[in-house]
Amino acid sequence: MEPPHPGTLARARLLTSPSVGPSVVRELERITGRPAGPGHTTGPFVYVGDTLPEALRTPELLWFHSVNAGTDALLAAGPWPEGALLTRTVGRMGERIAQYTLAWVLAECQSVPEHTAQHARAEWRRLPSELAAGRTAVIHGTGHIGSAVAVLLRACSVRTVGVSRTAPGALPTGFDRVVTAGSQEETAALADARWVVSTLPLTGATEGFFGGARFAAMRGATFVNVGRGATVDTAALETALRGGSVRRAVLDVLPEEPAGPGDRAWRLPRTVITSHSAGITADEDVVADFEACWDAIAEGRTPALTVDTRRGY
Amino acid sequence: MEPPHPGTLARARLLTSPSVGPSVVRELERITGRPAGPGHTTGPFVYVGDTLPEALRTPELLWFHSVNAGTDALLAAGPWPEGALLTRTVGRMGERIAQYTLAWVLAECQSVPEHTAQHARAEWRRLPSELAAGRTAVIHGTGHIGSAVAVLLRACSVRTVGVSRTAPGALPTGFDRVVTAGSQEETAALADARWVVSTLPLTGATEGFFGGARFAAMRGATFVNVGRGATVDTAALETALRGGSVRRAVLDVLPEEPAGPGDRAWRLPRTVITSHSAGITADEDVVADFEACWDAIAEGRTPALTVDTRRGY
Repeated sequence: MEPPHPGTLARARLLTSPSVGPSVVRELERITGRPAGPGHTTGPFVYVGDTLPEALRTPELLWFHSVNAGTDALLAAGPWPEGALLTRTVGRMGERIAQYTLAWVLAECQSVPEHTAQHARAEWRRLPSELAAGRTAVIHGTGHIGSAVAVLLRACSVRTVGVSRTAPGALPTGFDRVVTAGSQEETAALADARWVVSTLPLTGATEGFFGGARFAAMRGATFVNVGRGATVDTAALETALRGGSVRRAVLDVLPEEPAGPGDRAWRLPRTVITSHSAGITADEDVVADFEACWDAIAEGRTPALTVDTRRGY
Repeated sequence: MEPPHPGTLARARLLTSPSVGPSVVRELERITGRPAGPGHTTGPFVYVGDTLPEALRTPELLWFHSVNAGTDALLAAGPWPEGALLTRTVGRMGERIAQYTLAWVLAECQSVPEHTAQHARAEWRRLPSELAAGRTAVIHGTGHIGSAVAVLLRACSVRTVGVSRTAPGALPTGFDRVVTAGSQEETAALADARWVVSTLPLTGATEGFFGGARFAAMRGATFVNVGRGATVDTAALETALRGGSVRRAVLDVLPEEPAGPGDRAWRLPRTVITSHSAGITADEDVVADFEACWDAIAEGRTPALTVDTRRGY
């Protein structure tokens, strides 16, 4: 994916989707030095938003900057316009997702929901607490987000095993070791895990990744999904929760969001569903990441936040 | 506080309080190479337990090893027998209290109780989350426990300001800086704090330490008490919670424990009370810390876990 030529970028129009708020639009206008318009007449353009309207899937799209980190829905909506650069907002998402994950890991160790319920009954009774230190977390995905999760868990003296699609060269930050997805080492790590945390993106290779075999390999791990809902086979998760190979589940993402009141996910035992709140992107994240991409392209470099549209992330 | 002479220790009896379980007693017998008895006839003795029976407050008590970290109740129960060494169990208490503190800090940031309640209603609705990074925690007490709390908060990129009775020489681990209790620097730090965490022991100098003035200096901090309940003036805390200078409170310790259903602490707004569960000592902690003290004394050294019975910790 080649970035647009700096000269072409210099004369491109700036378009933003209706979901981009006025304060962000003002910042984008400041960075690019041109007014933003919602419409489109003719000539090359840059688009900042969440979804790409059908009418704008043209060869004149130079660059699409996604206000989200996940671009699976965007790429699934239709063939990506040839030659168009796709970049994404990551912001402080690694830090945010790591703090979300640690919050729920420690909430379980410290019986936070149970203490809250006891307090509501004005009941003072000792509840068990568990020291996370010395236990093992298996983290699927060893990129920016998986690494941030590993760093924080390791700060609590949790042992961290990463699972990667391919064997990495150097050990990514935060991991004690990394094993390859589908290997016997992964199966052994799942059996040993107190927590299994998925940070996987949704691609052709990860759909239904967590199915019967992986859940059956666990021996009482708590499963935390901060990646994408469709990487999990919900029926297999339900079987594992009922059978005990999965102790509890914390699901920030679901195959269908928002979950309606009749969604089968609400019936999963010992599960908490949160509303895709782990990796929110704040307005300042969109602006900062767009500016970093803009600066790179203007200097003829490929932005670090470029998405490989064939791989999907 | 001089440790007993190794020769005297060699012929001392070993007594344990009824609260010490049989598996711990067996370990103490193994370490000391003598049987443990609950009674006492005559001659020098070592006592392991939580409280010291009145009949055993004699000059024949060589050494009392407390199964708890806090020895305030023990010391308040009567004058300490002259010459008797007092040691305490700390175990992995620093780590445990740090994980408790971080659990509640992150539970607030990530709306853990609110998400749990939403889940119970099968409701999928975005809730705000807060990134702890970049905010400030003020931690009262810069010893072993305060330091462990600071280390974990700093792993989440929280700025850590310690408050110490006296200006420390070297900066204790985990702290960005340390200020002196009662100084203008402390007042300024309290105004800036997102969290105020107390790890203070209860001594003559810390009773009612958190009163009207300190709470009024806060501007919306969440107050977490993992030290001792009587260091807090509950009426002043109530005023601060109602006025908003204290945003929320998490109290693991109370002036009176266990709290009865009529305790005024249950009426504090935006407060969660947990049942003195942050710094539990496990059986293995008691055994390990007793053994370390035993080995030190047998070699003629003063154990690191010795309590200064005048200072109170």
